Amino acid sequence: MTLLIKGGTVVNADFTLRADVLIDGDKITAVGPDLDAPTGAEVLDAGGALVMPGGIDPHTHMELPFMGTVASEDFFSGTTAGAVGGTTMIIDFVIPSPRQDVMEAYHTWRGWAQKAATDYSFHVAITWWDESVKAAMGTLTRDHGVNSFKHFMAYKGAIMCDDEVLVNSFTRARDLGAICTVHAENGELVAHLQKELLAKGITGPEGHPQSRPTAVEGEAADRAIRIAQVLNVPLYIVHNSCIESLQAITRARNDGQRVFGEVLAGHLLVDDSVYRHPDWDVAAHHVMSPPFRPKANQEALWRGLQAGMLQTTATDHCCFCTPQKRMGHNNFTQIPNGTGGVEDRMHVLWHHGVNTGRLTPSEFVAITSANAAKIFNIYPRKGVVAVGADADVVIWDPARQRTISKNTHHQNIDYNIFEGMTVTGVNTTTISQGRVVYHDGDIRTVRGAGRYVNRPTFPSYFDAVKRVAEVNAPSAVDRMGV
Amino acid sequence: MTLLIKGGTVVNADFTLRADVLIDGDKITAVGPDLDAPTGAEVLDAGGALVMPGGIDPHTHMELPFMGTVASEDFFSGTTAGAVGGTTMIIDFVIPSPRQDVMEAYHTWRGWAQKAATDYSFHVAITWWDESVKAAMGTLTRDHGVNSFKHFMAYKGAIMCDDEVLVNSFTRARDLGAICTVHAENGELVAHLQKELLAKGITGPEGHPQSRPTAVEGEAADRAIRIAQVLNVPLYIVHNSCIESLQAITRARNDGQRVFGEVLAGHLLVDDSVYRHPDWDVAAHHVMSPPFRPKANQEALWRGLQAGMLQTTATDHCCFCTPQKRMGHNNFTQIPNGTGGVEDRMHVLWHHGVNTGRLTPSEFVAITSANAAKIFNIYPRKGVVAVGADADVVIWDPARQRTISKNTHHQNIDYNIFEGMTVTGVNTTTISQGRVVYHDGDIRTVRGAGRYVNRPTFPSYFDAVKRVAEVNAPSAVDRMGV
Amino acid sequence: MTLLIKGGTVVNADFTLRADVLIDGDKITAVGPDLDAPTGAEVLDAGGALVMPGGIDPHTHMELPFMGTVASEDFFSGTTAGAVGGTTMIIDFVIPSPRQDVMEAYHTWRGWAQKAATDYSFHVAITWWDESVKAAMGTLTRDHGVNSFKHFMAYKGAIMCDDEVLVNSFTRARDLGAICTVHAENGELVAHLQKELLAKGITGPEGHPQSRPTAVEGEAADRAIRIAQVLNVPLYIVHNSCIESLQAITRARNDGQRVFGEVLAGHLLVDDSVYRHPDWDVAAHHVMSPPFRPKANQEALWRGLQAGMLQTTATDHCCFCTPQKRMGHNNFTQIPNGTGGVEDRMHVLWHHGVNTGRLTPSEFVAITSANAAKIFNIYPRKGVVAVGADADVVIWDPARQRTISKNTHHQNIDYNIFEGMTVTGVNTTTISQGRVVYHDGDIRTVRGAGRYVNRPTFPSYFDAVKRVAEVNAPSAVDRMGV
Amino acid sequence: MTLLIKGGTVVNADFTLRADVLIDGDKITAVGPDLDAPTGAEVLDAGGALVMPGGIDPHTHMELPFMGTVASEDFFSGTTAGAVGGTTMIIDFVIPSPRQDVMEAYHTWRGWAQKAATDYSFHVAITWWDESVKAAMGTLTRDHGVNSFKHFMAYKGAIMCDDEVLVNSFTRARDLGAICTVHAENGELVAHLQKELLAKGITGPEGHPQSRPTAVEGEAADRAIRIAQVLNVPLYIVHNSCIESLQAITRARNDGQRVFGEVLAGHLLVDDSVYRHPDWDVAAHHVMSPPFRPKANQEALWRGLQAGMLQTTATDHCCFCTPQKRMGHNNFTQIPNGTGGVEDRMHVLWHHGVNTGRLTPSEFVAITSANAAKIFNIYPRKGVVAVGADADVVIWDPARQRTISKNTHHQNIDYNIFEGMTVTGVNTTTISQGRVVYHDGDIRTVRGAGRYVNRPTFPSYFDAVKRVAEVNAPSAVDRMGV
Ligand SMILES: [Zn+2]
Ligand SMILES: [Zn+2]
Ligand SMILES: [Zn+2]
Ligand SMILES: [Zn+2]
Ligand SMILES: [Zn+2]
Ligand SMILES: [Zn+2]
Ligand SMILES: [Zn+2]
Ligand SMILES: [Zn+2]
Repeated sequence: MTLLIKGGTVVNADFTLRADVLIDGDKITAVGPDLDAPTGAEVLDAGGALVMPGGIDPHTHMELPFMGTVASEDFFSGTTAGAVGGTTMIIDFVIPSPRQDVMEAYHTWRGWAQKAATDYSFHVAITWWDESVKAAMGTLTRDHGVNSFKHFMAYKGAIMCDDEVLVNSFTRARDLGAICTVHAENGELVAHLQKELLAKGITGPEGHPQSRPTAVEGEAADRAIRIAQVLNVPLYIVHNSCIESLQAITRARNDGQRVFGEVLAGHLLVDDSVYRHPDWDVAAHHVMSPPFRPKANQEALWRGLQAGMLQTTATDHCCFCTPQKRMGHNNFTQIPNGTGGVEDRMHVLWHHGVNTGRLTPSEFVAITSANAAKIFNIYPRKGVVAVGADADVVIWDPARQRTISKNTHHQNIDYNIFEGMTVTGVNTTTISQGRVVYHDGDIRTVRGAGRYVNRPTFPSYFDAVKRVAEVNAPSAVDRMGV
Repeated sequence: MTLLIKGGTVVNADFTLRADVLIDGDKITAVGPDLDAPTGAEVLDAGGALVMPGGIDPHTHMELPFMGTVASEDFFSGTTAGAVGGTTMIIDFVIPSPRQDVMEAYHTWRGWAQKAATDYSFHVAITWWDESVKAAMGTLTRDHGVNSFKHFMAYKGAIMCDDEVLVNSFTRARDLGAICTVHAENGELVAHLQKELLAKGITGPEGHPQSRPTAVEGEAADRAIRIAQVLNVPLYIVHNSCIESLQAITRARNDGQRVFGEVLAGHLLVDDSVYRHPDWDVAAHHVMSPPFRPKANQEALWRGLQAGMLQTTATDHCCFCTPQKRMGHNNFTQIPNGTGGVEDRMHVLWHHGVNTGRLTPSEFVAITSANAAKIFNIYPRKGVVAVGADADVVIWDPARQRTISKNTHHQNIDYNIFEGMTVTGVNTTTISQGRVVYHDGDIRTVRGAGRYVNRPTFPSYFDAVKRVAEVNAPSAVDRMGV
Repeated sequence: MTLLIKGGTVVNADFTLRADVLIDGDKITAVGPDLDAPTGAEVLDAGGALVMPGGIDPHTHMELPFMGTVASEDFFSGTTAGAVGGTTMIIDFVIPSPRQDVMEAYHTWRGWAQKAATDYSFHVAITWWDESVKAAMGTLTRDHGVNSFKHFMAYKGAIMCDDEVLVNSFTRARDLGAICTVHAENGELVAHLQKELLAKGITGPEGHPQSRPTAVEGEAADRAIRIAQVLNVPLYIVHNSCIESLQAITRARNDGQRVFGEVLAGHLLVDDSVYRHPDWDVAAHHVMSPPFRPKANQEALWRGLQAGMLQTTATDHCCFCTPQKRMGHNNFTQIPNGTGGVEDRMHVLWHHGVNTGRLTPSEFVAITSANAAKIFNIYPRKGVVAVGADADVVIWDPARQRTISKNTHHQNIDYNIFEGMTVTGVNTTTISQGRVVYHDGDIRTVRGAGRYVNRPTFPSYFDAVKRVAEVNAPSAVDRMGV
Repeated sequence: MTLLIKGGTVVNADFTLRADVLIDGDKITAVGPDLDAPTGAEVLDAGGALVMPGGIDPHTHMELPFMGTVASEDFFSGTTAGAVGGTTMIIDFVIPSPRQDVMEAYHTWRGWAQKAATDYSFHVAITWWDESVKAAMGTLTRDHGVNSFKHFMAYKGAIMCDDEVLVNSFTRARDLGAICTVHAENGELVAHLQKELLAKGITGPEGHPQSRPTAVEGEAADRAIRIAQVLNVPLYIVHNSCIESLQAITRARNDGQRVFGEVLAGHLLVDDSVYRHPDWDVAAHHVMSPPFRPKANQEALWRGLQAGMLQTTATDHCCFCTPQKRMGHNNFTQIPNGTGGVEDRMHVLWHHGVNTGRLTPSEFVAITSANAAKIFNIYPRKGVVAVGADADVVIWDPARQRTISKNTHHQNIDYNIFEGMTVTGVNTTTISQGRVVYHDGDIRTVRGAGRYVNRPTFPSYFDAVKRVAEVNAPSAVDRMGV
């Protein structure tokens, strides 16, 4: 099938240019002014709108079993919602239980993901350590296209890694050319504060942010960074939500370390006043970790994106509906952690990012798509509108408006943290693998059409880190002896 | 003429890929694996080497009249030396004398530059202010492809701008969509220290750095940044040489301001011990402003490049030979300020940047070429190996070695600040406008072949700055009156 | 006259101790537990309250002629109001007009101050430069007990110093052992913004903060600091109101520079929303420079005090009543700049500082009294309850409450920027020169009882700065010649 | 016994003043100009020298059993050496083995310390956790004058605390009003690096610093600070040796946290080149943790002292002689960690601190004596020359010179890390408890004359921290329920 997008302005991370885009099969085959439509080609008139690479959400949890329930959004509904919002690829997480065989977990998740409508890939969490885990990391990178491993520094007594596991896994990942990622919260402090708060009778959702103050995140971010520094391994910190972790990343990057930071759309726009909402359900809907933060953090995070200290945006899309949330109605520590957003990310970022001058359109593409592709080593297959790239493309009308609502969204969740937000700048058409899967309200996704994306190890920055390690390599002093 | 570069690895700022490159006339017409050579095409075998966009040196002064003499390198010899080193475009400076008609100065420089061998462009300095200067800024941006204006905060009593001129010129440039650039040193303090040092009998070149400590640069950098912030105008600071100005830029960028920083190859690699060399000539050869700095500044500047706080590298190529330097043999303030480097920049940056892991090859391309093209709004015409771009390309052998020396360089200057440095990673072939102008020791540049490059106003980041200004626009309070 | 304060807890900057305090004449003669009352001594029962050194307000402007009118508070009413609030000494400013003879101005202010009720001293502003000014600086330090000079970096076209005057005056002050102080705002930018705002029809008090954004203060603070650094002179920046100048000071202090920072009680507690008050008068009452700031600056300033980056608190007490403010009813640039506070400073700082845990009681003494005494070199004569010190003492009841109001204050001004604030912690008794001048609502100040306090030059930190300068002294290289 | 020091200049942390000092028994009874000698008083002519409070070394390890041997310096020899150098009090450490009864350990150390010549006190280390440890903390603070507990974040498998122990102990200490102190190094990383280095065949002392890079210290410092922040407890970090931990402290203090930092004389003056000394013994002599650091850290630490970000100086005096060091001749991890310095601290700090202008004499007193007394809550009993204070006083001749050497020092160790350093500024007389224990080369210390100093809990800053905690106390939201 051949598709010609006429009359748009191509926006890539590095430049903006009036150009047509020709798609043949699942690839982009030409980008340039005034392209002729090949015989039989379908022509899409962009009408002056923007043509951008489809969004990549590098942090989702479809149908995750967690805290005694299962996330309500599955791989088909979730990737479909993403497609409506302009996102054409997700990277989800395989999360083995402690002592579960890692390969078994991996295959379980691969099975679940068969139903995805758009392309996807998996980070694999390291939640415990022995020789089998070490071996599995090798198998996954060699044979299964996994190039990133996740580590939880929170959730004590469950999937939390202590420093010993971190050191073992980071070292292994480095040798395999895989990227280490962390959820950065000090689980010991969280557990202590939860106990203290419950003992004081604070059982509602307002206890959630009080048990996870920003210091807890800042500590863990700094610790992960220092461990990565000592072990000479690149690091990616997921869902940075506060000034403290941003400062840790900023410090490290300015000191020459290869550290990357992700920020969630929600943390950029929602503040912690939600937890004191008089309606328990509303408060509980926002329970996720790290929690929403005092307002001053938001502007700092935006600036982190603009200055390049944070590189990617995600959603941590992990839907639990109201009845699921109520599992913790007597105890905030039992409210399943997670909210939605995969459908809304691109819209809220454009509106609050580009329309306010915080981001140029090219920077928008960088932080919604290109940077994730580069860091996770699938660029320029993904993340750019260029000859040879996958035909994952969106057409974006910067003048159109819409209002976000649970009543109209396509996410399988009965509320929306951006409820009522009117945005200017709307995705009108989504192309995945060269096929139009969404156009102007018309959803055309196909269950199972999504492909698993292999991600090669040793992204380009690994070589640089290795050279630095060589320059600083330890050495012995030649002595005569005592 | 058609040229096919076979068997290389294309390195752009955003990715690296094995691909052939086809050039037709002065443009790149295809980039991809296994391209067929069109009939009559000349084929260049890259032999596995890297194919990169030619370097852009955004800061040179060919044949500049300065301090009572004229820089020894002219536009032909200078661009030829650049081509040998892999640089295919320079941006030089028109510097009107105070009260000189700006348009007259512009045309004078344009005349001198006719002899250039490769493409070039001009920043225009604003050295004084009246309505004619304001009008000239309009004419230059509208009719002459100038999109950047330079301001000297040093050289009191000569070309120095006081705050009033800065405010006037920055405001005007903003309205025209042109970039403000500054040479950041507090001229008042420099003048004071020069007088004090001479009074103490310190007349040798060692007085030069003592009259221009890093605090003097840090002050001016911060001042220019604050003025730009208040006036909502993007800013580009040339030749940042020290931690102080890097910190000022870093602070501003992290606060969301659009500030760019340039660093010279020399400041990254040469320290201030040169000024205490027992041989007066050697010391004097290094007299330039800002001066070379204590060693700790070098690592900081490298980190600034790596972290993206500094975006471009240049040379401030401004050659004065030994007899010219001796004009100040009794008084360091009369030593003409300037040294060479346009030929060596790419080599020393590769060797000390890429080989040490400070930079990836893509980052090397960014800081030697792509970023300058983006900031000065000629990307993707320049700065990238891509279809449609100007065929300014180099072939780079990362394994080859050479030793830099005044005896073998092609710069018209009788010393070299990198004398004796052996580098690994060598430019083997330079293509300018689709023609091989240098290959393996063979120089084929043509006097006058260089074209003046028009640079359009309103680079993409201007729109973002304007939106920020609108968000923060002043407003009146509606009151009933006293 | 002999006075014994029994049963209190002495709070000094370095410790807190239950102790009685004996005063003989104008000096403290004993501090210790269970002192016996000498025959004839008056005994004051502190009743467990705190006994602290009287406050020093290092920044006031009594009866200042400014902007076409004269400040409504004179030296008697002002020092009386101060005494009621626990302040027993002020340092006011002599401000010569440009080209006015400095000594003449000095004697004028000395004349006005004869009526003061408590001790006082004078900073002298340097508002222009020639040999007579330079000579006057010598005379003032040698013969008149002046050890500090003030420089306005704002008020273009009036009392503003350009860099040349700053360099001259700082150099002279350094050689005389006097402290340089600055009002840090970039006057060029202020003038530009004022013009722009008026041109846009913004004429109300809301134009005032919009014409003096924090960047304007941050710039000037950094510039003054850099000039002081280059010239090796200690620096004191008055009325720091924002994060930007705090950061400049913090950076400098952490780099080893001797820089001191003052903050006004008002800037710690009032934010810039006041300028958008619908009542013009209310908005105009708050017009002072630097203006009140967005709220986030307040917490930063408190932290600056706590961390020791800011050392002193003041009021910039400069009263203009409503009819005076109305001089600018059509043009905010003509509203006389200034507000009151000398009576309230100690109370609001105790309440918002000590009661919230931001400051310990000893830190309260440091920032209201001891630090000013140390910096301006009158410690331990002032600023401490110790044997040999001046008997300027207050008795402070940390449990008592009162509400601040223009209806009950003793300042000669018809509004109060802290109107309605209820504070816990109240001054009950003020002793000046060994005499009770205020007790529990009863005011006993005497017109003209205040003494002019000579302040010796070369505070202890000067020697340290001089040693640093010697370590870094410029030196010549011995060469054979060219 | 009565002693009158005539003709000196008293230097305290807050001021400098020509004054005589009268001592009666073990207390100072008068400070003032021209004091008369009481009958029978011994008169010491200070001859214009400085009279300062005796030094307090808050970090020593006399006769410590460690790494299979025992520190060679005992409490008598160590306090005597201290007295010679002007130090009149030490705070040593009780270090229970894991699972050892804490009270038993405490009494063991008290027994060893009976022989001390000058006053002393003890921090107690928490090296494990159960209810008995928790109870012992109560007993120690209530009945034994202990107000500080130490935590080792390094020494994995031995005395290292994990986060759980830190949280438990910090919480307990907070409730008892005791100060938490930490040795900040990430023990997990150290263990990993040690193993790696040994595996690479790096067994010499050069492996020591390579196994403990500055990042390892920075990580732990930040972690301890964040835990203290979350738990609302003041924190004191011992022996900060690098920019990383200084930055962590600086950040925290500027954010309003009560964190204190200590620096060792050695870290201020010795760099890590010592570990590559060709003589194994010389290298091994310097093995201590944290190790000596790259030179740039030294200037940063000095600036930390000057800016008030670091408050105290110590030595970590823990002597192991050459034969002891040789226990690790095949394996650097078995070299006993520790060096001397209690005798030299004051001299090297004066010479490199005051003579260079980094510190004023008053700041010298603050960082060698007064600040430790304030933080550990024995001020103004110790740390000041004032009426009522303990008569621990030194007379200091700022003009005299001496050269430090193992051949002349009084420490029981066969080398000196300051060997050969000539200092200007010499302690001539040490008075402890009102008795001259050292005068001009004549040592008069008495075995067992030293007293154990009880330190009360709840230093003044605790109240401030508690108020901050109250302001930020968690609270529940009142809801109707789900
Ligand atoms: Zn997470
Ligand atoms: Zn997640
Ligand atoms: Zn320049
Ligand atoms: Zn230049
Ligand atoms: Zn002012
Ligand atoms: Zn003022
Ligand atoms: Zn230790
Ligand atoms: Zn120790």
